[in-house]
Amino acid sequence: MAFDLASWLPGAQQRVERLLATRMDTLSLRTPAALAEAMSYSLLDGGKRLRPVLVLAFADALGGGGVVAEDGACALECIHTYSLIHDDLPAMDDDDLRRGRPTNHKVYGEAMAILAGDALLTEAFWFVAMGSTAELPARARMTAELAMAAGAGGMVGGQVLDIAADRPAAQEYLMQLHRLKTGALIKASCRLGVLAAGGSAEALDAAERYGEALGLAFQIADDVLDVTSTAEQLGKPVKADEAAGRHTFPAVVGLEASRRLAHELVERAKQAVKVVEPTPGPLAALADYSVERTK
Amino acid sequence: MAFDLASWLPGAQQRVERLLATRMDTLSLRTPAALAEAMSYSLLDGGKRLRPVLVLAFADALGGGGVVAEDGACALECIHTYSLIHDDLPAMDDDDLRRGRPTNHKVYGEAMAILAGDALLTEAFWFVAMGSTAELPARARMTAELAMAAGAGGMVGGQVLDIAADRPAAQEYLMQLHRLKTGALIKASCRLGVLAAGGSAEALDAAERYGEALGLAFQIADDVLDVTSTAEQLGKPVKADEAAGRHTFPAVVGLEASRRLAHELVERAKQAVKVVEPTPGPLAALADYSVERTK
Repeated sequence: MAFDLASWLPGAQQRVERLLATRMDTLSLRTPAALAEAMSYSLLDGGKRLRPVLVLAFADALGGGGVVAEDGACALECIHTYSLIHDDLPAMDDDDLRRGRPTNHKVYGEAMAILAGDALLTEAFWFVAMGSTAELPARARMTAELAMAAGAGGMVGGQVLDIAADRPAAQEYLMQLHRLKTGALIKASCRLGVLAAGGSAEALDAAERYGEALGLAFQIADDVLDVTSTAEQLGKPVKADEAAGRHTFPAVVGLEASRRLAHELVERAKQAVKVVEPTPGPLAALADYSVERTK
Repeated sequence: MAFDLASWLPGAQQRVERLLATRMDTLSLRTPAALAEAMSYSLLDGGKRLRPVLVLAFADALGGGGVVAEDGACALECIHTYSLIHDDLPAMDDDDLRRGRPTNHKVYGEAMAILAGDALLTEAFWFVAMGSTAELPARARMTAELAMAAGAGGMVGGQVLDIAADRPAAQEYLMQLHRLKTGALIKASCRLGVLAAGGSAEALDAAERYGEALGLAFQIADDVLDVTSTAEQLGKPVKADEAAGRHTFPAVVGLEASRRLAHELVERAKQAVKVVEPTPGPLAALADYSVERTK
């Protein structure tokens, strides 16, 4: 019998919501109220929570990672949220709408949006590094992994490729861009779950290959949805990529080839993850979900 | 005989320059060229290097902290540099000039400046967290300390207080603002040096009290220089605080009282640091320098 993601996912997402709300409460005690409000507005607005769900699912598949995995999960979502806030800024993509609501800078102004992003990025590292003495080696490894994935050679580097004036309309460039811009952080989510649970080198390698394939599949599916969905479904404007002169998989290789490529990647991810999850469970189902979702 | 800071400081600063250049070289290997250039422009432009010099001076006073202290020093300067790049943005202070050169966004544009700042902040945590197994517990502690100082309840929180529309012209508010905006990171520099060298709880406490006093003295001296110096000396416009409607120590408590307060704080710092440096050396001299400098 296939694993029932539809019953499992809402529970996993609610767990993430609770963890994020608790940590935001702790932060608020030492944060100016206006800043805490701007941070919470974007952090606690729902969303798919794919990255933290992946951290927890990998840790759970390996016997659980306790509070270290939970801190890693929250850190991933903080970093993802900061990247959305900064990407939406007028100087970047200049987006007014995100998940069906006005973007952070439309509500709090540009200065506060920049600072809310900066604070979420910084506090992510506090979440991941702070803990009891026995946890510190794993936490330091997770911190280095996270910084590498989010930094100049990862997510930020990918955003630089994305705003470059001379982006070539080539599949290889697109793959590299997405590997950095979204792939690196998704891959890190998988690896952090393994590190938090003290998994083997083999498990870490499986997380790497699964995360790499799923990250790219997820992004191709995003590009496809941007072409085939409605603004109402997505909670953000559609055909935004095209309007911004951004190259997408459907534009570069065609819609059908994009869908085929995404499905091949999903199969590769499911194959890789068998080391960690021998019987298909949440991780295999999340790979399917990454391309079958409707928003 | 008094310690000769004038002969010592250039060597300490050159050591920092070499460390930063080496780390930037390493980063460049995995960073898109345009991003690496924007990061280097602001990171490798000289400056006083107060924070990294403090990290290394504390570690050296306690027997040295090796590469862990050096990584901590570089991380501090990366975070300081990112904060300057973001503070200078049009949406924030809108400054065109920094250390006598055009600000990052004037050269590379707003989007790249935001991303260069984001990348410097992120890579700071990579520098501090990445290392050999034996170093990981100290590195995790340093990471948590750094994130706490730079985050919502530290530097970013201070910047939020600084851009607030309703800043009261009260000494207490100013002290709190500066404690967060510049003090937290200076204090963290001192504590990171102790953590890197494996110093005692007593040394950590001395670093805390020294850093707290020096950080505030340094900021009061900055406010005083803004009133009494010339743009040529400072490498940035003077009376900028007044023009921006920003409250300063001289404006709130008067010029003479500001100078007196700064000197009292320096004495307090020198008293506290005797635990770490029984014979006056670089740390005592740096406390004097924090208010006696001319830029």
